[in-house]
Amino acid sequence: MRTIPSGNVIITCAVTGAIHTPTMSSALPVTPDEIANACIEASEAGAAVVHVHVRDPETGEPNHDLDLFDEIAGRVQAETDVIIQPTTGGAPTMSPEERIQVVNRLEPEMCSCNMGSINFGLYPMLDAHDEWEYDWEPEYLDGTTDLIFQNTFEDLSVMLQTMNEYGTVPSLECYDVGHLYNLKHCVEQGWIEPPLHIEFVLGIHGGIGADSKNLTHMKRVADDLFGDDYSFSTIGAGSMEYPLTTQAVSMGGHARVGLEDSLYLARGEWAPSNAALVEKMVSLAWEIAGRTPATTEEVREFLDLKGTDKVAFA
Amino acid sequence: MRTIPSGNVIITCAVTGAIHTPTMSSALPVTPDEIANACIEASEAGAAVVHVHVRDPETGEPNHDLDLFDEIAGRVQAETDVIIQPTTGGAPTMSPEERIQVVNRLEPEMCSCNMGSINFGLYPMLDAHDEWEYDWEPEYLDGTTDLIFQNTFEDLSVMLQTMNEYGTVPSLECYDVGHLYNLKHCVEQGWIEPPLHIEFVLGIHGGIGADSKNLTHMKRVADDLFGDDYSFSTIGAGSMEYPLTTQAVSMGGHARVGLEDSLYLARGEWAPSNAALVEKMVSLAWEIAGRTPATTEEVREFLDLKGTDKVAFA
Amino acid sequence: MRTIPSGNVIITCAVTGAIHTPTMSSALPVTPDEIANACIEASEAGAAVVHVHVRDPETGEPNHDLDLFDEIAGRVQAETDVIIQPTTGGAPTMSPEERIQVVNRLEPEMCSCNMGSINFGLYPMLDAHDEWEYDWEPEYLDGTTDLIFQNTFEDLSVMLQTMNEYGTVPSLECYDVGHLYNLKHCVEQGWIEPPLHIEFVLGIHGGIGADSKNLTHMKRVADDLFGDDYSFSTIGAGSMEYPLTTQAVSMGGHARVGLEDSLYLARGEWAPSNAALVEKMVSLAWEIAGRTPATTEEVREFLDLKGTDKVAFA
Amino acid sequence: MRTIPSGNVIITCAVTGAIHTPTMSSALPVTPDEIANACIEASEAGAAVVHVHVRDPETGEPNHDLDLFDEIAGRVQAETDVIIQPTTGGAPTMSPEERIQVVNRLEPEMCSCNMGSINFGLYPMLDAHDEWEYDWEPEYLDGTTDLIFQNTFEDLSVMLQTMNEYGTVPSLECYDVGHLYNLKHCVEQGWIEPPLHIEFVLGIHGGIGADSKNLTHMKRVADDLFGDDYSFSTIGAGSMEYPLTTQAVSMGGHARVGLEDSLYLARGEWAPSNAALVEKMVSLAWEIAGRTPATTEEVREFLDLKGTDKVAFA
Repeated sequence: MRTIPSGNVIITCAVTGAIHTPTMSSALPVTPDEIANACIEASEAGAAVVHVHVRDPETGEPNHDLDLFDEIAGRVQAETDVIIQPTTGGAPTMSPEERIQVVNRLEPEMCSCNMGSINFGLYPMLDAHDEWEYDWEPEYLDGTTDLIFQNTFEDLSVMLQTMNEYGTVPSLECYDVGHLYNLKHCVEQGWIEPPLHIEFVLGIHGGIGADSKNLTHMKRVADDLFGDDYSFSTIGAGSMEYPLTTQAVSMGGHARVGLEDSLYLARGEWAPSNAALVEKMVSLAWEIAGRTPATTEEVREFLDLKGTDKVAFA
Repeated sequence: MRTIPSGNVIITCAVTGAIHTPTMSSALPVTPDEIANACIEASEAGAAVVHVHVRDPETGEPNHDLDLFDEIAGRVQAETDVIIQPTTGGAPTMSPEERIQVVNRLEPEMCSCNMGSINFGLYPMLDAHDEWEYDWEPEYLDGTTDLIFQNTFEDLSVMLQTMNEYGTVPSLECYDVGHLYNLKHCVEQGWIEPPLHIEFVLGIHGGIGADSKNLTHMKRVADDLFGDDYSFSTIGAGSMEYPLTTQAVSMGGHARVGLEDSLYLARGEWAPSNAALVEKMVSLAWEIAGRTPATTEEVREFLDLKGTDKVAFA
Repeated sequence: MRTIPSGNVIITCAVTGAIHTPTMSSALPVTPDEIANACIEASEAGAAVVHVHVRDPETGEPNHDLDLFDEIAGRVQAETDVIIQPTTGGAPTMSPEERIQVVNRLEPEMCSCNMGSINFGLYPMLDAHDEWEYDWEPEYLDGTTDLIFQNTFEDLSVMLQTMNEYGTVPSLECYDVGHLYNLKHCVEQGWIEPPLHIEFVLGIHGGIGADSKNLTHMKRVADDLFGDDYSFSTIGAGSMEYPLTTQAVSMGGHARVGLEDSLYLARGEWAPSNAALVEKMVSLAWEIAGRTPATTEEVREFLDLKGTDKVAFA
Repeated sequence: MRTIPSGNVIITCAVTGAIHTPTMSSALPVTPDEIANACIEASEAGAAVVHVHVRDPETGEPNHDLDLFDEIAGRVQAETDVIIQPTTGGAPTMSPEERIQVVNRLEPEMCSCNMGSINFGLYPMLDAHDEWEYDWEPEYLDGTTDLIFQNTFEDLSVMLQTMNEYGTVPSLECYDVGHLYNLKHCVEQGWIEPPLHIEFVLGIHGGIGADSKNLTHMKRVADDLFGDDYSFSTIGAGSMEYPLTTQAVSMGGHARVGLEDSLYLARGEWAPSNAALVEKMVSLAWEIAGRTPATTEEVREFLDLKGTDKVAFA
């Protein structure tokens, strides 16, 4: 595993995602304004990277409108130097062809890249509410009973080579052990060159479960496959957000938090904002592992990002 | 983990599958005659269960012709009491609706059931040959670059409930850690009732890698999720067939071998037949773990199979 | 693994131990007064159990003076209902015969019991100071270069049976994986009856290292050996105190902290008191896993302790 | 992990040890003649290394008579080029000072070195026989109830530096996870320089248990501590000999077998000789992992041994 020379921890904030819906949390940012502000506040709270999805400003439904990405990225960059990482995962309902467009359009420093196909079941959340603010919400969730989040080998080839073309560094999202082997294959095929920055995603319904032993195992497999040529961050879905991010931080890894991954700040307590989740992560990284947040400068150097002057948004 | 009272090992032989093609091995059974004979010989060599796919008798291309299943099952049952386990995985190119039909038609004692969606890449085998006996072979392999082996949660619900309806006991094929969590979900939803018989499938390109630590971890997750309510068998793809099946056997599990999983008997030595692979497994299970092959009687009792008088083939 | 019905976390505070010496921290309690007060304050901060060693009141050197144990236990019990757990580990320099005497004398509700023999090297701490308050300090530390912490199978037999005789429930201290197998042997020999309460001790120089994967593995081996018949707590030595106790807490286990185990409250910050370490543990258990401290009542019920009316100190 | 360039497997045969007693097996070599012949036959069967203990020729009791070592080594070397690896573990009843003498006297190419202190209980074998050929046998076994196999940090320092002085390469015997951390400490102290050749010893009563998951974990810890600077071999005590050595071989490691480690060739079948155990290992390494035995030449090169011209026996 590669480690950042300062020993600091890279905190990424995933501000809205495509998993939760407006009825679930009033804190979930939906409009470009809300999403941009969430990014700016997350940055102020200690996040070096913000992971961005977009939503229909009227209904909050996840979409992949490139103008929205552009507007949000521009606003965030005007006010902070946070690293903007648009999703290429979009919603699990979207095609890879649609999802990759954000790279061609924004030419960002980073983006996410999802390393395999899995079932992606959001439907168990249907039980959480009897009434929904918008009709699309229960339909969207229910639709995932028969849904695969598609990332074929062909898709991976196209995605990674597009990122390479634009100098965009991927956060390589691995939802199960097999995805690490897929990634190894991509390296062997020349679709991506190490060093790699991997995100272990634990707790998606369809992927590996969110617990301590699985995080331990994911790291072990990555060690075996990539040696010193990779760094990692961790997502723990739902109530496993802080158990797994703090374990990752104590193992030398990095952490992603945010309303995409968990709506709770603590047991029984709703997160009032993305910034609150970042603040908690900053505090725990220090309290448990004595690590402070990495600055955007050191992340840019560590991940060899091309810099904000080479992106295609204002 | 449940263990069979005798301590014996359940050997399953997967005689043809949908992974290898005729050019790759002249030993691969293709016609109903060949497939039935392979099953009978495997049974004589010590297999208590045979896992059956069918192929176009002319070209050897994997298909899912129910008449072929019926013909093969009938012939095998006429000569042996081996447990016939038709695939419901078919080829990764087939739809779940097509694949499940074999249960409605044959009402078998067992069948396979695949516990999640993954990329299923056979295309690296394109490098193994310059010329192919049949045109469909390179096309079929190449087609897997963009292929997902589909088993959505909705599919799992339908498949498991169909099996339940016909009293068919599934071999629950788990290709990655997340599939064990999928299976837990199926139990919680009531789509299947324990005890469970799980097949750990290691080494499919798209699933978890074939090595010792991954087998160890799969078992551990299953232990945590299912306690004493499950038994397991193991497949190691290709050259990892015997390393992983023998490790499984020494851990108290069971073993699947056969030309579906590996074309080699030993390093650099082609397997002349399915029976040869079974014989080797019988020998190794004894040499390494002092275990002898389970009889069909004890497997029927252990897995609570309904018996050959309740199947729908002659 | 057994879990406490409330889901609460048992916090044990090890207030002084026999590892650190007075020069290392002015907060280390040494006199009976100081040790008793440390216990009382730890209790008020949220500890349900206090783990007690004694020291020469003049010099702070670890000893095993039974009158000191008696005095401290009496004072603590007069003011709190905390569960008093005297050590039977004493210092690694003491014989098992000497160490067990505290059980015969105090007949306590709990005590520690060390599950095997290991090298126990304190000498690397010699580098931390050039000058020492007391001459015994560097001699004591240096003496551990050639020292074994002795707990033979014969010792285990005597210790466990003595505890059983007095109705004293052991906290079974396992410093390496083999100690779990030793414990299994003790159960098979009838020297102790489940349920078991195990302490995983990680990071002693001579035992298993203090990191995440080792904690994961210790739990796994315990699961395999003891199924639902055990509960566990975790010690992480030094800077690994909170990384490992929080991981344990998120895995359903319990936590031990205190100046025996770590002198630091956070990176670069000395712990001002045992109570401060307990308070931090209480806070982290809530922040990370949503768990609150178990009360003495529920610990007494969970571990089936005999109650304070059956101990032999006033 | 370092791998031998040819991919071959280093087979070590431990021909007599100090664990089993004459009553237990008539195949156990006892006299210098028997021990030397066992080494020669093991070499002919495929072992590149023989691990040698000595015994009283009259009674078979383990001792550490340097003349016996000298006689045996001389005879073996006269007839084969096998690598002779005398024990420095001796019997667990001997002192380290006594045990190391064999290095000063023989100046061998290799020897064993035991990496920590543990209980070493042979007494459960008392149940296997009602009558014993020699009085010392039950006394010896019974004496281990209260015995520690002593290898303090001071002992390790002396042992490793003595080996270094004579150019003797140690096989670093690790009986539990903590021993790997002890070894790391020895490297940090400069008592030994990498590359390291480690023997994972699983199944001694007092050390880590003999099963698949523990072998997996030992390797993982070694990977984390030593990266590419170590190679490993594995011992599985008793009936776990072949399950663990074959797993090790399939993981890229090496294998030790012999009557020191197991008296059985297969379940219920006594091993007629050390050579039979080696032959079985040769066969299984090929059948399972396609690996052939390493020659003495390649082992000498891989482990950088000084050669037979630099030893002090004729």
